[in-house]
Amino acid sequence: MRIKAIVSYKGTAFYGYQIQTKTKERSVQDEIQKVLSRIFSSDIKIVASGRTDRGVHAINQCFHFDVDKENIDLYKLKHSLNCLLENDIHIKSIERVSEDFHARFSILDKTYQYKINVGEFDVFNDELLFNLNQKLDVELMKEASSYFVGEHSFHNFCSNDEDFIRKINFIEITHTDNLVTININGNGFRRYMVRMIVGTLIEVGLHRFNKERIKELLGEENFRVSFKAPSSGLYLFDINYGENKDD
Amino acid sequence: MRIKAIVSYKGTAFYGYQIQTKTKERSVQDEIQKVLSRIFSSDIKIVASGRTDRGVHAINQCFHFDVDKENIDLYKLKHSLNCLLENDIHIKSIERVSEDFHARFSILDKTYQYKINVGEFDVFNDELLFNLNQKLDVELMKEASSYFVGEHSFHNFCSNDEDFIRKINFIEITHTDNLVTININGNGFRRYMVRMIVGTLIEVGLHRFNKERIKELLGEENFRVSFKAPSSGLYLFDINYGENKDD
Repeated sequence: MRIKAIVSYKGTAFYGYQIQTKTKERSVQDEIQKVLSRIFSSDIKIVASGRTDRGVHAINQCFHFDVDKENIDLYKLKHSLNCLLENDIHIKSIERVSEDFHARFSILDKTYQYKINVGEFDVFNDELLFNLNQKLDVELMKEASSYFVGEHSFHNFCSNDEDFIRKINFIEITHTDNLVTININGNGFRRYMVRMIVGTLIEVGLHRFNKERIKELLGEENFRVSFKAPSSGLYLFDINYGENKDD
Repeated sequence: MRIKAIVSYKGTAFYGYQIQTKTKERSVQDEIQKVLSRIFSSDIKIVASGRTDRGVHAINQCFHFDVDKENIDLYKLKHSLNCLLENDIHIKSIERVSEDFHARFSILDKTYQYKINVGEFDVFNDELLFNLNQKLDVELMKEASSYFVGEHSFHNFCSNDEDFIRKINFIEITHTDNLVTININGNGFRRYMVRMIVGTLIEVGLHRFNKERIKELLGEENFRVSFKAPSSGLYLFDINYGENKDD
């Protein structure tokens, strides 16, 4: 049977989601696979919605795996997993799904969230947000964010060498107290793409980068922005598999 | 001249506030003294309002120190300190005070804050609160908390061998979403006293300890409660030196 799980993790102490076969650095995938393999006394591989980089967090990462058994107490399985996993990984839900479901290929769209502290340095949440500690022109950032929405070539806003066309469905920016939160939803994201878009929006918000330049850079392939917001503020927020739409 | 500073720190990676001369473990006092001594090129000792234990945080800890100079740019000093200190310590304010001021002896009262997550396990804030993950009967806890208010012998609610009389001025318990927050104000606190009071209130809130027993235990000296809430949820919240009252 195929099992789908939703997991949250604090990325600070991980080298990233993906298993590091050579360096043996700590990874989310490796820790979950080890615990599952212990529980089922057989080698279990998991397939996630995608990777997250070193230091990036996940509020709702999704993965699936297959087991040869048919009668599994999913409540007990979730509890066993959480007892055996370290405190920076937590399985939020677990359910049986059809063999058609695939954590990566079934995705309709994904949402990332980015958190920026524009107030005084926050000693408690330094690993959980970007301690910018400067005021941002959020209205200007909202105007700039609209330029990213739609289907574009994001060559200048990622670190990959090919396959740059992605569609951003929406960017929402909210400002409450000292926290600026940016939600970005799209059909897929290339490496560092969210952090480069956010980094660019921050430069706009600090009046250090002209927002009109964004229009030119979407499509051109001769310039790569050097603004990359730090990993501490980035969260994989949600994966949409369209289940609710099918209801 | 005498300088007063307000500092916040995340206690997770410290052995505690106080310098560990034998073990050389990381302490808040040692890190601040080292940086101040570097800045002033002389041996500076700081005097804090009191110690905090291993893993306990501070939102507004206060300390004072003396320097032989008279003309110091306090804005620059604060900035230099924050540049040289690690990201889990942050100097929030710095000001010149009269020689009469003493960070420990001038205290009128102190407030500690304790944070309990009564919702789902929170992977992100595990170092910043107590992940109880069970519902609490907050109304019953409020009733129980009133028994602690006033002057009592706290022998059964601390780990010290003498000097147990302290006065609790108020205990405020608030419950919003999944967070229960307890603020305790008093004229002084013995070792583990806040954590033992909170631990007892949690046992009451879980219906595992009869609140009427608290009345008996305040004053008796033949029983010590074994409930000690973990350090991760505890914050030194505020120190009152009566400055505002003098205005």
